[in-house]
Amino acid sequence: MRLNTRVEGIEPDRGEVLLAHGERLSYDALVIGTGAEASLPDIPGTAQDGVFTLKNLRDGINIKEYIKRNRCRRALIVGAGFIAMEMSEALRNLDLETAIVYRGELPVKKWDPVFSGVVLEELTKNGVSFIARKSPVAVERDSQGLRLLTDEGKFEADIIIFALGVKPDTGLASEAGLATGKSGAIKVDSSQHTSREEIFAVGDCCESYHRVSRKWTHIPLGDMANKQGRVAGRNIAGYSLVFPGVVGAQSFKVFNLEVAMTGLDEKGAEASGYSPAGTIIWGSPVAASMNRGEKLGLKLIADRVSGTLLGAQAVGQSGAVSRVNILSACLWSGMGLDEIGYMDFAYSPPFSGAWDMIHTAAQVLEKKL
Amino acid sequence: MRLNTRVEGIEPDRGEVLLAHGERLSYDALVIGTGAEASLPDIPGTAQDGVFTLKNLRDGINIKEYIKRNRCRRALIVGAGFIAMEMSEALRNLDLETAIVYRGELPVKKWDPVFSGVVLEELTKNGVSFIARKSPVAVERDSQGLRLLTDEGKFEADIIIFALGVKPDTGLASEAGLATGKSGAIKVDSSQHTSREEIFAVGDCCESYHRVSRKWTHIPLGDMANKQGRVAGRNIAGYSLVFPGVVGAQSFKVFNLEVAMTGLDEKGAEASGYSPAGTIIWGSPVAASMNRGEKLGLKLIADRVSGTLLGAQAVGQSGAVSRVNILSACLWSGMGLDEIGYMDFAYSPPFSGAWDMIHTAAQVLEKKL
Repeated sequence: MRLNTRVEGIEPDRGEVLLAHGERLSYDALVIGTGAEASLPDIPGTAQDGVFTLKNLRDGINIKEYIKRNRCRRALIVGAGFIAMEMSEALRNLDLETAIVYRGELPVKKWDPVFSGVVLEELTKNGVSFIARKSPVAVERDSQGLRLLTDEGKFEADIIIFALGVKPDTGLASEAGLATGKSGAIKVDSSQHTSREEIFAVGDCCESYHRVSRKWTHIPLGDMANKQGRVAGRNIAGYSLVFPGVVGAQSFKVFNLEVAMTGLDEKGAEASGYSPAGTIIWGSPVAASMNRGEKLGLKLIADRVSGTLLGAQAVGQSGAVSRVNILSACLWSGMGLDEIGYMDFAYSPPFSGAWDMIHTAAQVLEKKL
Repeated sequence: MRLNTRVEGIEPDRGEVLLAHGERLSYDALVIGTGAEASLPDIPGTAQDGVFTLKNLRDGINIKEYIKRNRCRRALIVGAGFIAMEMSEALRNLDLETAIVYRGELPVKKWDPVFSGVVLEELTKNGVSFIARKSPVAVERDSQGLRLLTDEGKFEADIIIFALGVKPDTGLASEAGLATGKSGAIKVDSSQHTSREEIFAVGDCCESYHRVSRKWTHIPLGDMANKQGRVAGRNIAGYSLVFPGVVGAQSFKVFNLEVAMTGLDEKGAEASGYSPAGTIIWGSPVAASMNRGEKLGLKLIADRVSGTLLGAQAVGQSGAVSRVNILSACLWSGMGLDEIGYMDFAYSPPFSGAWDMIHTAAQVLEKKL
């Protein structure tokens, strides 16, 4: 194990990696797991003290220490994806005044606007301000603290966190002549080989095959990185193993809300050549007789031509992730709404109605196709 | 709607049903939904006041009223299936001393003995006595209350509930000459037709096709009854619709425990011509870093020959039903352990580890095949 050791270059034709200070290491097989880097906007002032991104454990520790050391009271988060959501909860738990500044209208834009609206309500209910339709143009500092300048007004803070997504870190791979895909991430096959047989790439730096869109995509998530690492390792050790791809399942928790999705939304489905239709239903995550005021929203997207499920989204205090996981298994094997509408689940009133919301949604959507 | 109206007979050749007092109703299509009846052992004394079975809402109300009216303090439940489990919780919630008398060693024998042991612990922790290896031989009453006589000792109680399972109520159907299956329930096809085209049967009185055992079985559960009713209705209305069968998914809650299963256990798998292997793993329903002391047990059963999943069981304070539902979707489409071990779920630490217990269990079992 060589920790804290920077690789300066890969030389595939010599089968060597070049370390800092000129040292070289030779390899028979090489695994690239360079991950992704948090995006920063190209605006002045982002390099100052008190401006952070959040990608790894070290970033998290740094943010916590900075807040403590400087007795921060006011935090700004720029961006409104799931990292921004999770950060807003963490900052409120530390009792900071927290505001999210976002160029769009609603948070978590990957989800249906109706569900993004539910997330916005949850933020508001928990004291997070959501400042919509503002793009950052600079960060300044004076004796009062930091100031985020936007195209429409300034916002003061003691700490600013940019949560604008990540980009695959492909520098070393590209310099070594390895192919990248349309997504910008390193191109791999199902055994995680890059364009060179003896070099593997895994995790946030590489692409994954999306079983629903049937395209190679860049969806950087920790669970896939784990799986791809094992697939590469087994192939290197001589056991053939294939990474069977992803369906785009993801989730986050924000305060008391579970938010989850899988597969494609209508836009993604169209871009993949499908003819999508969608429906949202609202219901109870457990049998109505056992519900204590919880509501679950479930959206299904399916193909008009084949009736196949293409995607699902869910939002609620409970039961959202478990539904999306079931529907991920359905997507995985390409099930149609006709089957999903009559599938057999482990029904019991504390856990669902006799007709689960999955059944109802599938039947409602099937009628719309 | 003719409620509280007893059908005395079906006369298929005339297309009529015979009501009490000689009235007749004619039909073009007939749906039999006679359900199942709770089993009572063939022993003396079960017809007395204070001895109950639990099958429908009326039974539940009667039990509650009896307890209140007679200020019952001590309850006995005979049997240890999921109705017995649910009843024991309900009776403890009413503050009754509650004991379960059972001829076997452990409760809920459909589950692996290891998981039944966890259920037993949960009963004990919540003040329910479990009296094993006793078969009832008679019920008696004296001024002190009821007494259950068994092959090994007597037990006193103010109320006795027999929870010994159900039998399909096929009386009318059999008298009308309709075929019953090996399970004893009414034989139907996938559109819910009985052996006569114009007579349908749905719910607890009829068989269902089990997609894993590939046999027609009698698994009387409320969610299937709902689905079969809709299938029959649509077929009668001229829209062809098929009930795609069951995988045997079921669950119950007992105190703070979720208990769930789907598919076949080893014995059922062998009886269906498979060559099963199983494994149990224990882990955390959420990411280990977020776990507050919860343990989840997950058992998978798969076929040694094909590597296909055959069944799953789970027990834990949370996360058991959601895993079993995902695995029901996997069973539904006949997935193999190789795929299940690398499936894509909506990972986030509050909801699972990066490797979900499903992944781990599938990989552990695959090595044992």
